[in-house]
Amino acid sequence: MAASIQSSRPTPERIFNTMIAFQETEALRAAIELDIFTAIAEGANTVASLAAKTGAAERGVRILCDYLTVKEFLIKRGDEYSLAQDSAVFLNRHSPACLATMVQFLASPWSKKNFGALTASVRKGGSATETGDHTKPHGEVWVNFARSMAPLTVPTAEFLASLLGASEGKDCRVLDVAAGHGMFGIIVAKCNPNAQIVAVDWAAVLEVASENAAKLGVANRYTVRPGSALEVEFGEGYDYVLLTNIFHHFDANLCEKLMHRVYAALRPGGKAVTLEFVPNEDRVSPPVAAAFSLVMLAGTDAGDAYTFAQYEKMFGNAGFSKTTLHPIPEMPQQVMFSEK
Amino acid sequence: MAASIQSSRPTPERIFNTMIAFQETEALRAAIELDIFTAIAEGANTVASLAAKTGAAERGVRILCDYLTVKEFLIKRGDEYSLAQDSAVFLNRHSPACLATMVQFLASPWSKKNFGALTASVRKGGSATETGDHTKPHGEVWVNFARSMAPLTVPTAEFLASLLGASEGKDCRVLDVAAGHGMFGIIVAKCNPNAQIVAVDWAAVLEVASENAAKLGVANRYTVRPGSALEVEFGEGYDYVLLTNIFHHFDANLCEKLMHRVYAALRPGGKAVTLEFVPNEDRVSPPVAAAFSLVMLAGTDAGDAYTFAQYEKMFGNAGFSKTTLHPIPEMPQQVMFSEK
Repeated sequence: MAASIQSSRPTPERIFNTMIAFQETEALRAAIELDIFTAIAEGANTVASLAAKTGAAERGVRILCDYLTVKEFLIKRGDEYSLAQDSAVFLNRHSPACLATMVQFLASPWSKKNFGALTASVRKGGSATETGDHTKPHGEVWVNFARSMAPLTVPTAEFLASLLGASEGKDCRVLDVAAGHGMFGIIVAKCNPNAQIVAVDWAAVLEVASENAAKLGVANRYTVRPGSALEVEFGEGYDYVLLTNIFHHFDANLCEKLMHRVYAALRPGGKAVTLEFVPNEDRVSPPVAAAFSLVMLAGTDAGDAYTFAQYEKMFGNAGFSKTTLHPIPEMPQQVMFSEK
Repeated sequence: MAASIQSSRPTPERIFNTMIAFQETEALRAAIELDIFTAIAEGANTVASLAAKTGAAERGVRILCDYLTVKEFLIKRGDEYSLAQDSAVFLNRHSPACLATMVQFLASPWSKKNFGALTASVRKGGSATETGDHTKPHGEVWVNFARSMAPLTVPTAEFLASLLGASEGKDCRVLDVAAGHGMFGIIVAKCNPNAQIVAVDWAAVLEVASENAAKLGVANRYTVRPGSALEVEFGEGYDYVLLTNIFHHFDANLCEKLMHRVYAALRPGGKAVTLEFVPNEDRVSPPVAAAFSLVMLAGTDAGDAYTFAQYEKMFGNAGFSKTTLHPIPEMPQQVMFSEK
């Protein structure tokens, strides 16, 4: 592990850093759990004042904050810490763009357990854990998801609402399948006062979505249908069916089964609206979308990040006339429209 | 998480990547456990041939190898994978510089457990686990260390042997405290046919060191003294006492206690030779040495990465006349000589 990257001679530095990369996740998680970034934003900027404010030991705070400085989440001048620019925007709970809660899902015990069993999952070709069948509830996992992952969703949800022309205010019935925190449907409803949203997810998850719908003032146009996306009665005549981050949990057969159900629920000319990680045909680019397959190998029996060609084929098999792909500016996911 | 870094506008990309950085550790660990890199070096370069060779499922191999390509450990052309340059040198078991075993210590269940409890450790100011007292054996941890961590040691051990003028071949008695894999003392013995090495560590660990001494042909000049570095009889009249990666486990009192014992074991003019992570006075540079404190917070009751000023003071308190600091080219650790 050379102290700096040497010209073109191979060094073990990157390999060593990867072997200990989990330390960075845990340090960020600890700092978020102790709300160090918010405490600094509120003016506690020394070891002593941070320890007092967070209830942690001075030695613990000193070592953690020095580490966060090494990793450029904090800046240290003399004995005083301040927030690096992205920490101030995304890790301080007073910032409207704060994403801190996401660590509770992305680095949850469930997620770490999935990845801890990765060798066995590669051998098996699917999650070696007992929670890989995502047709089953696993309520606590998805309630955690719904409680943690809403923040990063908002810009994407606003983009999706604009793609749907929500601000035009036309009468519009929207089914949100596997709604989670519900933000995709809720933001459509917020942008369009004539949109009615029906949300499907496990009952415990829909409680979170309903809370969010109430918070954003659309509860009177928000109804829920608790149950499995593969089994619950959807209703029919929808203008749009939102399918955000659902297909990657399933194998192609289950994806097509769900697509058939969505087709039946749409009015003629209605559209399935899919939000997904869609890797290129080479399956190794773009990086975030391509890397996502591993999350599905670790955590599901047979889920995957499917390519656009795979989605086109599956939607075609389910009766849709055509599927189009739409990148989202600055985000790693893409939107697909599939027309009935 | 923007797909690419935007000018100076803050993006959540780095925060998001840190929240999932543990996935990279686990992917590399899985690939090493399945010996994917060696299999590719031996010519299995497609999903089918790699699955056959490693006994893993094709789906698992495909997703893991694509992920390793995204992370630039592999190169993919069409359907064929090859090794990136540093993977070929450092992850292929046929390469003399292979470091693959290190993941078994750096990302061991013990290490992951330590970091999993990090929030509680910051609160407490010391490891929240039950294995933080490193005056106790924890045999399985240190046997794993001794079995896993030798590879990266060799260049450092050779540099250390040259600093000690080992190739001059003078009669020389060396005490190696907390010898671990034993490579530091063993390489001195290998470079100097007139060096006698006495190694101290827990009995189970010394078995590994003795195996290594036999492998490198110095067993006849290698003796062991099993027990605690703070309690076992060292003997006396040594020219050098090697103290490699031992002080960081202890608080300053225990460090000084050990230094006193070392002082007593040296002949007049003899030297304590310390290998350590030594951060600058700012405690946030250089990065690898400064970041190491967190490993000690997570894993020990009161260990730390001490600065040179702290070492100077502790060695002075223990009676040493002066301590000098010597960087090791391209490595993050430094050597200190403290003269009796």
